Amino acid sequence: MIIHLKKETGLEKANQIATENQAFLIEEENKFVLISSSSQKTLDSKYNDFVLEKFVFPNDMQLSSKEYMSKTREIQWGNVKIGGDTNNTVMIAGPCSIESEEQIQESSALLKELNLTMLRAGCFKPRTSPYSFQGLGLDGLKLLAKMRKEHGLAIITEVRDATHIQEVIEYSDIIQIGAKAMYDQGILRACAKTQKPVMIKRGFGSTLQETVQCAEFVLSGGNPNVAICERGIRTYETKTRFTLDLCGVAYLKEYTNLPIILDPSHAMGHAYGIADLTRACTAMGVDGLIIEVHPDPTVAKSDASQQLTHQQFKDLLTSVHPVAKAVGRVIV
Amino acid sequence: MIIHLKKETGLEKANQIATENQAFLIEEENKFVLISSSSQKTLDSKYNDFVLEKFVFPNDMQLSSKEYMSKTREIQWGNVKIGGDTNNTVMIAGPCSIESEEQIQESSALLKELNLTMLRAGCFKPRTSPYSFQGLGLDGLKLLAKMRKEHGLAIITEVRDATHIQEVIEYSDIIQIGAKAMYDQGILRACAKTQKPVMIKRGFGSTLQETVQCAEFVLSGGNPNVAICERGIRTYETKTRFTLDLCGVAYLKEYTNLPIILDPSHAMGHAYGIADLTRACTAMGVDGLIIEVHPDPTVAKSDASQQLTHQQFKDLLTSVHPVAKAVGRVIV
Amino acid sequence: MIIHLKKETGLEKANQIATENQAFLIEEENKFVLISSSSQKTLDSKYNDFVLEKFVFPNDMQLSSKEYMSKTREIQWGNVKIGGDTNNTVMIAGPCSIESEEQIQESSALLKELNLTMLRAGCFKPRTSPYSFQGLGLDGLKLLAKMRKEHGLAIITEVRDATHIQEVIEYSDIIQIGAKAMYDQGILRACAKTQKPVMIKRGFGSTLQETVQCAEFVLSGGNPNVAICERGIRTYETKTRFTLDLCGVAYLKEYTNLPIILDPSHAMGHAYGIADLTRACTAMGVDGLIIEVHPDPTVAKSDASQQLTHQQFKDLLTSVHPVAKAVGRVIV
Amino acid sequence: MIIHLKKETGLEKANQIATENQAFLIEEENKFVLISSSSQKTLDSKYNDFVLEKFVFPNDMQLSSKEYMSKTREIQWGNVKIGGDTNNTVMIAGPCSIESEEQIQESSALLKELNLTMLRAGCFKPRTSPYSFQGLGLDGLKLLAKMRKEHGLAIITEVRDATHIQEVIEYSDIIQIGAKAMYDQGILRACAKTQKPVMIKRGFGSTLQETVQCAEFVLSGGNPNVAICERGIRTYETKTRFTLDLCGVAYLKEYTNLPIILDPSHAMGHAYGIADLTRACTAMGVDGLIIEVHPDPTVAKSDASQQLTHQQFKDLLTSVHPVAKAVGRVIV
Repeated sequence: MIIHLKKETGLEKANQIATENQAFLIEEENKFVLISSSSQKTLDSKYNDFVLEKFVFPNDMQLSSKEYMSKTREIQWGNVKIGGDTNNTVMIAGPCSIESEEQIQESSALLKELNLTMLRAGCFKPRTSPYSFQGLGLDGLKLLAKMRKEHGLAIITEVRDATHIQEVIEYSDIIQIGAKAMYDQGILRACAKTQKPVMIKRGFGSTLQETVQCAEFVLSGGNPNVAICERGIRTYETKTRFTLDLCGVAYLKEYTNLPIILDPSHAMGHAYGIADLTRACTAMGVDGLIIEVHPDPTVAKSDASQQLTHQQFKDLLTSVHPVAKAVGRVIV
Repeated sequence: MIIHLKKETGLEKANQIATENQAFLIEEENKFVLISSSSQKTLDSKYNDFVLEKFVFPNDMQLSSKEYMSKTREIQWGNVKIGGDTNNTVMIAGPCSIESEEQIQESSALLKELNLTMLRAGCFKPRTSPYSFQGLGLDGLKLLAKMRKEHGLAIITEVRDATHIQEVIEYSDIIQIGAKAMYDQGILRACAKTQKPVMIKRGFGSTLQETVQCAEFVLSGGNPNVAICERGIRTYETKTRFTLDLCGVAYLKEYTNLPIILDPSHAMGHAYGIADLTRACTAMGVDGLIIEVHPDPTVAKSDASQQLTHQQFKDLLTSVHPVAKAVGRVIV
Repeated sequence: MIIHLKKETGLEKANQIATENQAFLIEEENKFVLISSSSQKTLDSKYNDFVLEKFVFPNDMQLSSKEYMSKTREIQWGNVKIGGDTNNTVMIAGPCSIESEEQIQESSALLKELNLTMLRAGCFKPRTSPYSFQGLGLDGLKLLAKMRKEHGLAIITEVRDATHIQEVIEYSDIIQIGAKAMYDQGILRACAKTQKPVMIKRGFGSTLQETVQCAEFVLSGGNPNVAICERGIRTYETKTRFTLDLCGVAYLKEYTNLPIILDPSHAMGHAYGIADLTRACTAMGVDGLIIEVHPDPTVAKSDASQQLTHQQFKDLLTSVHPVAKAVGRVIV
Repeated sequence: MIIHLKKETGLEKANQIATENQAFLIEEENKFVLISSSSQKTLDSKYNDFVLEKFVFPNDMQLSSKEYMSKTREIQWGNVKIGGDTNNTVMIAGPCSIESEEQIQESSALLKELNLTMLRAGCFKPRTSPYSFQGLGLDGLKLLAKMRKEHGLAIITEVRDATHIQEVIEYSDIIQIGAKAMYDQGILRACAKTQKPVMIKRGFGSTLQETVQCAEFVLSGGNPNVAICERGIRTYETKTRFTLDLCGVAYLKEYTNLPIILDPSHAMGHAYGIADLTRACTAMGVDGLIIEVHPDPTVAKSDASQQLTHQQFKDLLTSVHPVAKAVGRVIV
């Protein structure tokens, strides 16, 4: 249940009502927003005078639901806006992992050449083996910050676990919560306490509802700037790395107000299909795309098979623009 | 292994070589085509003089593979061609089930109005409950044949099991093998003995390789006119009926020469997402789309929730054309 | 809905009521059983005088449900009874495919030595490739019939598609509907017209409810002798061939009256785990087990990796008896 | 690759070799153990004199593999030993969440009455909704410690994310890494630095190999006391909460040296099937079982539907002993 309380309720009283109802409390400019479990359907009538509006829901997708907010939420991502009344589809690109300053300078140059504004690169890699390359860590974050400063790029990078969430919040423009860390409440609760935009990647074994409820952890803690990324789920099919769930995207567009970013690179796991999939994702009318591209994929320290060359990425981008236009959107 | 034998080998000798190698034999205009298990890598050297060309493969995707035939095979589907050098994406539409002559006349009129040529409607419904509507059977086939005669439409309809395969072959223009019947060798072997085009729907629990190997049953029996339809696979996600596997489509496009048809209606299971998904499927650059549309979905006897109204379908079609154009294709 | 009609209703009247309600009709010794869709909750009150008892259900699991028949149905399988008040767990064994008379004589001798009564062996193999061994067909059936005659064994063998269902009904003691043919209505409807016991294998992409509804096709057609076989479902895990769903077995035991047979061989796909799994299956308290065992698995023409040697099977059987005893059951 | 270096190599030299090879180093009583990626197959020949033994592996399951250590590793779990030459199957029981001192005293009393030694109860609940009960946190840990002190019970409790890993290490006897936190390197690396036993629950979307590789994170960091818990994976079947993967357990028993614990409660999600499943798990010959039991499941704050009553649990335990005996094991 969501209750809007009048501003004149006052913070102290609002807090008391929240505590009594085991509810979250968010203070906004003109009202207090109280969020409790969807199983709660009424507020004690003694508080009637404070209530502006009441919303009840069939499940715990509440702040994120279209019923509560009928338009996709507008979020400032670095230099661009997504959601709201914009028709923007932001193209995020960069290598799987930052490996060296030379490499990330090349990636940054590619983005500048193509008038793109958002650089992705992992510093803390959630590898499934302790014997694989684990990322440059804090050194990587500092190199990314340098790219922002030198090239004006916005930075999105992944937090792997709660031990380095403060560093990621500090150094990145958008905080990416990786698929394997989706349920991590240490991360989610820390993200709720900042206003920096957060992109939550759906776990590859996670339902749509669980994914949206992870967004609710951040939203209910006071950070309204949350987007969801679909990056493929695990199925019995093994010819491709994962299975991109565009039916699920249709569901999210219909029922939630969260901007949606699609990651065809991780879903496919092979460079060959990514151009076709990216065009399909664009035609879905989503808010962003995130593509892995590497100066030389053959020597990449992670995800070598799915990273595009710079030339492949340029060709892909050229082919994506008319598709975006055909569905009334603009690649930014 | 596929061996091309010279025409002068003669049918008798070719048959003998085939029998000796437990191989299938297809007679073509200028050669004999011998197909044996991919585990076989050589033919006895005594036959060297008969051999034109030899192809070996890593698995039993042979006649269907891009290695064997580098271009998508061209097939005449009713009044239109798909595959080959065409850029056609055929739009197949119609109700889930044929329920009455009145209903199917309305559907036919819709197609005529929109300059579409291919009507879908099920007569033998593979329902999972014996207590549900099972379809009009042979009476349905006859009504569909009437639509072809009266309106010049090509008919695609589903065979449920081997007991009525001859009727479906006789009455339809394209034989649809349903997802639940994909492995049915009674059907597959009968389809191999006709030259009518066949569309095999991937089973919702079937791998890409198994699906292609079902096509091999038809191809190796002598019918080259086989297409594959992806209609969603079963995953743990339950908000949508199935999960449309576009990563799998990227795989099929890369490795096989089979035309690909996409069925967003069955994948989604809800009318609301089908327009978005159809645009995404179109952007994948596939050879066809198959959409369920009903004069009045609220009274449909099967799949009520996923059938579009005529107006919804018209709007969808209008929006699909620019997407097709953006990827160099034409909706026919 | 199931309605029991008094015997004095008479066949003609009962048929008329069934037709009016789009219901199946089964004549039993003391009553008529009318079965219509579970969405139907009432019968016209004008028939009240004919009605003995009425059962309504939340879904189309009706004749198979524990609500309708609270005890597992008792079925005569060859020389043994399963279900009902027996505590029998029948051990079915034999090779994946019958390959020669010599081979099947060795298998028969093994069963006789171990006092087992039920021989399995496939004649029509539902291979996923047209280039693999497809089985001996009718010749295989005749060899199995010979084993019955010579050794008194009961025969269970698989029907692959509807084209040879009559032969399988004629030659086998128990008709096995394979996992890939589970939905085949040509087969199911033919099985409904005999009284021979039927074992339906759950499709590897099929839900529990769909599987039970396939049993309803046979039951509602008049054959009460149906058992279900769980043989592993397809999941994202690839280290084993399939994933044996014992949670699903717990569900079937709780909600249905169908005897349950477990097939650890196909689930595992590797000989090494089958003994452990068979003991686990036995401890579930099920009605039967079906194990692949071959005189020489290394030369088997199908499923080589999962077939046990005769010695492995003997050791397994020895270890299974005490587990059966521990849960109050007897291996027969 | 694992290399055993002679003790006389000395720590400094061993460290240098490890660094050069990007390897982990563990100092044992009589040797140094060096572990690098399985892609590495040789050590520079200049170090030959230091090498005692070398092991190469086909993948990154190394320290955990049967090839490296042929027997299940023996671990002291509170008052009992599991693995090694023991035939112990430890029965862990208790509520899903600790809710109050009164509740946990009742649970402790049940264990004492039944001569069980290991109490489970969650303090940090990894709920998928922010609006559900999140657990008592540190207060819960302190209550569990009180149960240890008062009743001599060993405590196993779950760590949800890295923010409270030190508290869980301090207060528990066995650290449980929950299914949703399986990949959490903040947790895994902290667990590697203690010698307390760790139980890693397989993620419900995680492969067997990934699960074992998470164990490798702990093992390679120097803590040899790791067990794996299978608690059901997510599949398309929805009648049960998850699908318990006993085929996967057979794989783990064959290829790894990690003790295996089974959790039928979470797999099933319903009280009705848990007794049957627990007997099946016991018959698999595993090292432990973990069952949810609550003084009054109807008022439980989490997992209400799957918790057993005290009486149900007593009946289950009685029935499990003979199954354990039948497979040569003892419930402790």
